[in-house]
Amino acid sequence: MNKRIKLGMIGGGPGSFIGPVHRKAARMTNDYEFVGGVFSADFEKAKQVADSDHIDVNRIYPDLNTMIRTELALPAEERMQAVSIVTPNYIHFEAAQKLLMNGFHVICDKPVTTTVPEALELKRLVDETGLTFCLTHTYLGYPMVRQMRELVKTGVLGEIQRVDAQYYQGWVNPLIHGGESHLSAWRFDSKYAGASSCLGDIGVHAFNLIEYASGLKCTQVLADMNHVVNHVDLDLDATVLLRMDNNCLGLVRASQVAAGEENDLKIGIYGSKASLKWDQENPNYLYLISDDEPNKVYRPAHAYNTEIAAISSGLPCGHPEGLHEAFANLYAASAKSIRGEELKDGELPGIVDGVRGMQFIEGAVNSFKKGNTWVKL
Amino acid sequence: MNKRIKLGMIGGGPGSFIGPVHRKAARMTNDYEFVGGVFSADFEKAKQVADSDHIDVNRIYPDLNTMIRTELALPAEERMQAVSIVTPNYIHFEAAQKLLMNGFHVICDKPVTTTVPEALELKRLVDETGLTFCLTHTYLGYPMVRQMRELVKTGVLGEIQRVDAQYYQGWVNPLIHGGESHLSAWRFDSKYAGASSCLGDIGVHAFNLIEYASGLKCTQVLADMNHVVNHVDLDLDATVLLRMDNNCLGLVRASQVAAGEENDLKIGIYGSKASLKWDQENPNYLYLISDDEPNKVYRPAHAYNTEIAAISSGLPCGHPEGLHEAFANLYAASAKSIRGEELKDGELPGIVDGVRGMQFIEGAVNSFKKGNTWVKL
Amino acid sequence: MNKRIKLGMIGGGPGSFIGPVHRKAARMTNDYEFVGGVFSADFEKAKQVADSDHIDVNRIYPDLNTMIRTELALPAEERMQAVSIVTPNYIHFEAAQKLLMNGFHVICDKPVTTTVPEALELKRLVDETGLTFCLTHTYLGYPMVRQMRELVKTGVLGEIQRVDAQYYQGWVNPLIHGGESHLSAWRFDSKYAGASSCLGDIGVHAFNLIEYASGLKCTQVLADMNHVVNHVDLDLDATVLLRMDNNCLGLVRASQVAAGEENDLKIGIYGSKASLKWDQENPNYLYLISDDEPNKVYRPAHAYNTEIAAISSGLPCGHPEGLHEAFANLYAASAKSIRGEELKDGELPGIVDGVRGMQFIEGAVNSFKKGNTWVKL
Amino acid sequence: MNKRIKLGMIGGGPGSFIGPVHRKAARMTNDYEFVGGVFSADFEKAKQVADSDHIDVNRIYPDLNTMIRTELALPAEERMQAVSIVTPNYIHFEAAQKLLMNGFHVICDKPVTTTVPEALELKRLVDETGLTFCLTHTYLGYPMVRQMRELVKTGVLGEIQRVDAQYYQGWVNPLIHGGESHLSAWRFDSKYAGASSCLGDIGVHAFNLIEYASGLKCTQVLADMNHVVNHVDLDLDATVLLRMDNNCLGLVRASQVAAGEENDLKIGIYGSKASLKWDQENPNYLYLISDDEPNKVYRPAHAYNTEIAAISSGLPCGHPEGLHEAFANLYAASAKSIRGEELKDGELPGIVDGVRGMQFIEGAVNSFKKGNTWVKL
Repeated sequence: MNKRIKLGMIGGGPGSFIGPVHRKAARMTNDYEFVGGVFSADFEKAKQVADSDHIDVNRIYPDLNTMIRTELALPAEERMQAVSIVTPNYIHFEAAQKLLMNGFHVICDKPVTTTVPEALELKRLVDETGLTFCLTHTYLGYPMVRQMRELVKTGVLGEIQRVDAQYYQGWVNPLIHGGESHLSAWRFDSKYAGASSCLGDIGVHAFNLIEYASGLKCTQVLADMNHVVNHVDLDLDATVLLRMDNNCLGLVRASQVAAGEENDLKIGIYGSKASLKWDQENPNYLYLISDDEPNKVYRPAHAYNTEIAAISSGLPCGHPEGLHEAFANLYAASAKSIRGEELKDGELPGIVDGVRGMQFIEGAVNSFKKGNTWVKL
Repeated sequence: MNKRIKLGMIGGGPGSFIGPVHRKAARMTNDYEFVGGVFSADFEKAKQVADSDHIDVNRIYPDLNTMIRTELALPAEERMQAVSIVTPNYIHFEAAQKLLMNGFHVICDKPVTTTVPEALELKRLVDETGLTFCLTHTYLGYPMVRQMRELVKTGVLGEIQRVDAQYYQGWVNPLIHGGESHLSAWRFDSKYAGASSCLGDIGVHAFNLIEYASGLKCTQVLADMNHVVNHVDLDLDATVLLRMDNNCLGLVRASQVAAGEENDLKIGIYGSKASLKWDQENPNYLYLISDDEPNKVYRPAHAYNTEIAAISSGLPCGHPEGLHEAFANLYAASAKSIRGEELKDGELPGIVDGVRGMQFIEGAVNSFKKGNTWVKL
Repeated sequence: MNKRIKLGMIGGGPGSFIGPVHRKAARMTNDYEFVGGVFSADFEKAKQVADSDHIDVNRIYPDLNTMIRTELALPAEERMQAVSIVTPNYIHFEAAQKLLMNGFHVICDKPVTTTVPEALELKRLVDETGLTFCLTHTYLGYPMVRQMRELVKTGVLGEIQRVDAQYYQGWVNPLIHGGESHLSAWRFDSKYAGASSCLGDIGVHAFNLIEYASGLKCTQVLADMNHVVNHVDLDLDATVLLRMDNNCLGLVRASQVAAGEENDLKIGIYGSKASLKWDQENPNYLYLISDDEPNKVYRPAHAYNTEIAAISSGLPCGHPEGLHEAFANLYAASAKSIRGEELKDGELPGIVDGVRGMQFIEGAVNSFKKGNTWVKL
Repeated sequence: MNKRIKLGMIGGGPGSFIGPVHRKAARMTNDYEFVGGVFSADFEKAKQVADSDHIDVNRIYPDLNTMIRTELALPAEERMQAVSIVTPNYIHFEAAQKLLMNGFHVICDKPVTTTVPEALELKRLVDETGLTFCLTHTYLGYPMVRQMRELVKTGVLGEIQRVDAQYYQGWVNPLIHGGESHLSAWRFDSKYAGASSCLGDIGVHAFNLIEYASGLKCTQVLADMNHVVNHVDLDLDATVLLRMDNNCLGLVRASQVAAGEENDLKIGIYGSKASLKWDQENPNYLYLISDDEPNKVYRPAHAYNTEIAAISSGLPCGHPEGLHEAFANLYAASAKSIRGEELKDGELPGIVDGVRGMQFIEGAVNSFKKGNTWVKL
């Protein structure tokens, strides 16, 4: 019997949004056996999570060092092989560093670190160890995002003349307008979140999506930001002008204070012959528009899609798949990588995406601090 | 540690669409441990499925009787507790009957049987044994379908004056127009599929959705059907007029030959004050329309939803969930039922839905055979 | 200077919805000079309409006979040439008959008459006189409806296997549920409206659209109807099964009591290779869906459209046009016909559409009265 | 009989897109009699337009001075009262100036002039003469845009935290990529178009819409622009950061090279409690989204709308209206103004909009020239 990969987790304790998503995604692939981890700084709470998730409480650890030491002492075939890092941002670097240095594959939330040098250091470690490092840029797991990238490669758009992405949410409004008490949220504290709230949490997804789907690289950024209320020290709303390596204009817009917006990540890649548009809230529709023929709507699970899109959807056409499946596609790609199987181009976002993301965040923050000037990435 | 329910499966071998969906849904809940079953009449193939799905090949059985006998011989805490039936229709009855008679909980695909008396016999057994019986009317697991039913209950629609559901697919076209060879498909053979193809496979979903969401009961049906091509003996396209118990008109339309339609299940419930509309391909939008105020769009994961809708979505708003999650909601409800936990109204479609579905199919087929006359359900 | 056609109107007085639409449509074409008519049985009110519409009050007449007599006495170049009939249904026949017999071209609202024999008599007169007779089936003026018909003609759908149209409105609810006082509405009185309210007012549009767009003819109908409340004698909600001349199933659904629906006319033509869908409330989108390639969205004002679609839109692409323009396209076609210019196929709905519509209404009403049996058209 | 306003036109000759739109809009209101003008520098062509439009060829003039002199010599009740200016941009100023100085009301296309001082001079003249000056910012005539502004006024959005507008078209692509020959288009020549192509032609609409709908004023701009190809001297693609007078971020994006986009003008106003979104290509839907209750969709012709929205639609709900009607609403407002009738707030875009628009264009161009620095408006 083909063995499942033994998976651990750092973070994802009670109240975590993203921890359960990682666990569900891993289970959906059936490529992993979830064996334990460090779920919470509060050991009792961590054990409750383990219990409710049917995980052996003996492999719940009080801290990362204990986990590494104990697991390394286990026989190889029982030992944890890969670890998901789903903590607040500021822990990502140290945890990833230790795990990689001790031979564990890593699946890490974004933003990968809180500074560019940390990201570069992780890149060095990944290159050196040859271990798998997956950065869970969730949206790169959607079939139609992957199809978008492939369609761009064919040249059907002609010359790319503009790239736009936006990521709007509204969930921060009640926190900032409803009183001080909610501001303990770690995302608004640069100590825990890094130099940016809005760009670090969501703007970086938009940036990542642009480079992934268009195949272009951003060369410089000019950012405007808004903290919205006096008692918040990080950006909650931002606009970033991009210049791309083919000289076309790009744009990232991100907001955490757009009331009523849920998870409104959109991208448009505009070419001289045709353009592509995709919207995360309706992820199973990819629009190819042109002036010369009727607009086209690509849908998952059709023979006309490319191979990477095809392997990214698991149901017949018309049966909606969503974020869990996109996430699971990243876990599936990680499993392939861990097993040494060949990956399709674009199947596994990794440390390079992480470095680019940190460069974007840092560049944008610097641009704003310098009075909205251009900053090279 | 809270134990997971030990789950088996009948059917779902290589090439099956629905088997893997059941397995993935069960894994998503994390309420089940998938332990074995009878995956295929071809024992070697069954073992391959087991291997690729990381299931112990020793609990793959050549036939149902062997499985029941062997499992019953295991200690209670190792024994299979529930079994999913995902075979062609004609096997449902016999398998469910044997499983219920031997104390196994059952999770069964629809249509529940191929005749009304069989469905009634299963109902008798379920009532007698007190075992859990889940009929996987997938669409009843969607948060917005459940919200729809709750909104109807509040009376916001006024008097219901019309109910419509449609279910259109196009996948049969290449089979019937592309040559004889494909007609081995079991769905077109009444021996395996029962009295109907189109109504039995998809029309029954539309009917079920009408009764579920509107709270009305259908009292009689008048059906028109089309076999489309001479060499097919079952309906591939059908329209069924309904009369509901409040005397309003109802309608079920179903087609397997609507080229380009993917899985186009839609419902509208039209009232004297307001109406509700929902569409399976965009399941996270529920429309409440009226003449007196702006139309309203309900979305999952908001505090304004009812409790059953709330427990039916697992992600923050704006993160799309789809069919797997709807399916998993039925598995979660089954687990609650098996464990004796309290269910919300409408959380678990069961044998009563099965009996109603068979009455609908049989009534419609009889109506058509009698020259499109009304048939009481 | 190319002279404009001198146009008169019967009906369209104060409070009329459709009268002003006709006048605006005629003005949009700039093909007509609106010179007078019989706007209302109340002569004073008629004169007010004339004044507010900048029409010479001397050509407002107290009744049709006076109008005909007086106009015929004018020199040919001043004389009214065409007359729009926008009265309640029961007046259509007599007015059209007199006008045709006296040499006036006629532009008439639907339903063309209240009985089939009346419609046939008008057809005889139109054939005999060679005068232009336009039946304002508004929706046949939309560019994308015309494009739909042309696409069907190309055979791109393969064999047509199903045709569906629906027309849902909710405006009648407050009238029937809000008290008796509103029931003076002429549409609910068979003396003024003919044998049907819902099918006569809107169902007939759906039927007309099916035959127009699909190119198929309906051979028989089976109808179910609902008066909804005891104190209304006509249908307010109806479903009509159709059998088409290629043996495929068809369907017309119409409701005036679907709360919240505005003017929800939709059509789907489903083929063995592809299908077409169009929706009146978003009239500038025509969907061609198939299993083999991405779905296509046709939009007006593109070079890829057919010639009749091209001449039907007057703005560059992306500038929305709506019902007024569709209506104006019928007035433009009438002007071409009156001037003896060549018309495109499908450009001018006429008396043949009127006869078919009356056969549909009469057939459906008879089917319902006979207990939902098939009635041949 | 209430007399219609006698209307003339400068520009709008053969091949003009906007001239016929003005004429049709004026006719739709029935408030105007179109009596003549200077349609083209080519007098013969001008007469052909007159003939095809049923206008007395004797009032077609070879130039503006002749027109003014001749019309002023006519008896007051025959004389042209208002003149529409639909020429290339560079003529707007001189024509408007002369017309206002000679007592004619003016209806002028945007951008109002090619420089800010010209716009200010026209403002001085309008203030001095008290004549009506309508700047045809078409999109301000849409019912749902007007409703948007009124909803903002109610405070339902809470604090406005972000405003975004985009205007994307693709029509320029074939001109710039298809060869030099097409570059005679006046829009790409600063002599005729002014300092900007993309912002002057369409970006200014987006800017205008932001200030109109949000009620906020922009205080400074920072622009990035792209000429796309070497042989074009004006911007064809641009992004403009805005800072609004309440300190929130704003954004205008405009492109003439977004292949496949038709006339994609969109706006979003994001508040602390709720947000509003509108899209010109689907103009009859206005979205009010919030986290606390289901999203709301406003539609024209409902009693729940405000008064100015109500008077802006002429059909029952569900009957689509589009750009012609929006345009006609501006002509109707102009007629009310000319007759001295009271206007609703926001009903008539005028010279103040023109001055703001020119300040925006000039500010953005200067910002770009100075290396993407902030420029105060």
